[in-house]
Amino acid sequence: MKRTTPARMRELAVSERAELDRLLDQVMIAHVGLSTGHGEAGHGDGGRGDVAVFPTALARDAGSILIHGSTGSGWMRLAADGRPACVTVTAVDGIVVARSAFESSFRYRSAVLFGAFTAVPEDAKEDALRIITERILPGRSGEIRAPLRRELAATLVLRMPIGEWSMKVSAGWPDDPAEDVAGDAWAGVIPLSPPRPGVPEPAPDLRTGIAVPRSVRDAAQPSGTGA
Amino acid sequence: MKRTTPARMRELAVSERAELDRLLDQVMIAHVGLSTGHGEAGHGDGGRGDVAVFPTALARDAGSILIHGSTGSGWMRLAADGRPACVTVTAVDGIVVARSAFESSFRYRSAVLFGAFTAVPEDAKEDALRIITERILPGRSGEIRAPLRRELAATLVLRMPIGEWSMKVSAGWPDDPAEDVAGDAWAGVIPLSPPRPGVPEPAPDLRTGIAVPRSVRDAAQPSGTGA
Repeated sequence: MKRTTPARMRELAVSERAELDRLLDQVMIAHVGLSTGHGEAGHGDGGRGDVAVFPTALARDAGSILIHGSTGSGWMRLAADGRPACVTVTAVDGIVVARSAFESSFRYRSAVLFGAFTAVPEDAKEDALRIITERILPGRSGEIRAPLRRELAATLVLRMPIGEWSMKVSAGWPDDPAEDVAGDAWAGVIPLSPPRPGVPEPAPDLRTGIAVPRSVRDAAQPSGTGA
Repeated sequence: MKRTTPARMRELAVSERAELDRLLDQVMIAHVGLSTGHGEAGHGDGGRGDVAVFPTALARDAGSILIHGSTGSGWMRLAADGRPACVTVTAVDGIVVARSAFESSFRYRSAVLFGAFTAVPEDAKEDALRIITERILPGRSGEIRAPLRRELAATLVLRMPIGEWSMKVSAGWPDDPAEDVAGDAWAGVIPLSPPRPGVPEPAPDLRTGIAVPRSVRDAAQPSGTGA
C-alpha cells in the first residue's frame, strides 16, 4: 500500500495543492508524529518502534511548514534531528447521522504530510517567527517589540518542505442502503462550526488606558459580523 | 527524559485521572501515531523510523479507549497488530496574547497516551460500537436498528488500556517581564469556543414525515439554551 494513496472508497482523495494549502492555513494546531527509538531524548525502545505524537501550532510558509518551541522541549529536539516526521492536520466539519451506526461518520478534511524537519538557522529565525505570529494573529507582529536575542536563542524553529502528502475530504450525506431509507430512522448532518473566538479578556496586569489592538479586534470580530 | 514527564515549566502537568477522563470524554477526535516500519501495510523504511499519524473518533470505555474503522483501512490494520501506539488528544481553549511574540501562547489541554491496541473480539464488537455511537451522539443507538452481521465483520474495533499517559494544561495569562508590562502593548486572552453543533440538515433522501430525533435535537441544542 502506498502510504499517500487513501485506501477507503467513501472519502474523496484530494490532490490539488491549493486545497491542502487552504486547510493548512485554516487549522490552529497540527499533530506531529516521530519515532522515539533512536534519539538521545527518547527512551530506548528495543526496536519496538515507539512513537510520540505532540500537538503544536503550525504556519505555512509558501512550500513548507513551520513549527516552533522551546529549545528545552525534548520533542522539538527530537524533531530537529532530521528523523522522519508525520504532520497531520484535521478539521471536523459535521456529524453525518445515518440510519444505521455503520453508515454514520464525520464530515472532515484531513491531510497527512511526510518528511523531515530541519532547524531554521539563527539569521532566519526572526522572519520565520514573524510568519508564525502573523498566522495566529494577523497584524500582531506590527504591534509588539522585536524579539530579543536571548528569546531567539531559546526558541527552536523547524521547517519541513511540503513534499509527500495526502488529503482526504468527506463532505457528503448519509449513504444508506435502500432498505434503511425506506425505514423510519432520521438521517442528515449536524454541522460543526470551527473554534470561534470570543470576547477578548484583558490580562490582570494590563495597565489602564491600553486599548484592545487591531489584531485582537479583528480576530475576535470576524469581518462582516458587526462593528 | 522520561517520556511522560513534561519538560516545560510554563504548562501545568496534570496527574489526576479524572482530568484525563474529562478531556477524553470531551474531544471529538484523537490523533494516533504508529511506526510504519515493520508492518505488511507500511512501506519498508530501512530502519529510518517512519511514522504515520491518523485522525479518528475515540470513545473512553472505563479504563480503556476504543477506536474503530474499516477492515480495509491500512492504518487500522497496522494499529491492530499490537505495535506501540501513541494517542494524542488536544483541546485549544484560547489564544494567549502577550506583549511579545516570545511570551504568546495558547490555552490548551492535551493528553498523550502510550500503549498498544488489541482487536475487540467478534462477540464484544456490538457492545463496543454502541459505546462509540453513544459517545458521539448520546441516545442514538436506541433510535436505530442493530448492526448487521456483515457490518460487524467489516468493522475493526480496537481497544487500548489507559496505562502510561501524561497531560498538560495551560490555562493562565500572559507572563510578561516587568519591562514589557510597563510598555504600551496590550495583553490578554482571546477565548476559543469548542466546535459548536449547528442546525441539523435533513438528508436529501429523507422520507417526509420523519421528525428530527431526540439524540440529534439534544446534540444541536445543548441543555439549558432553549426549547
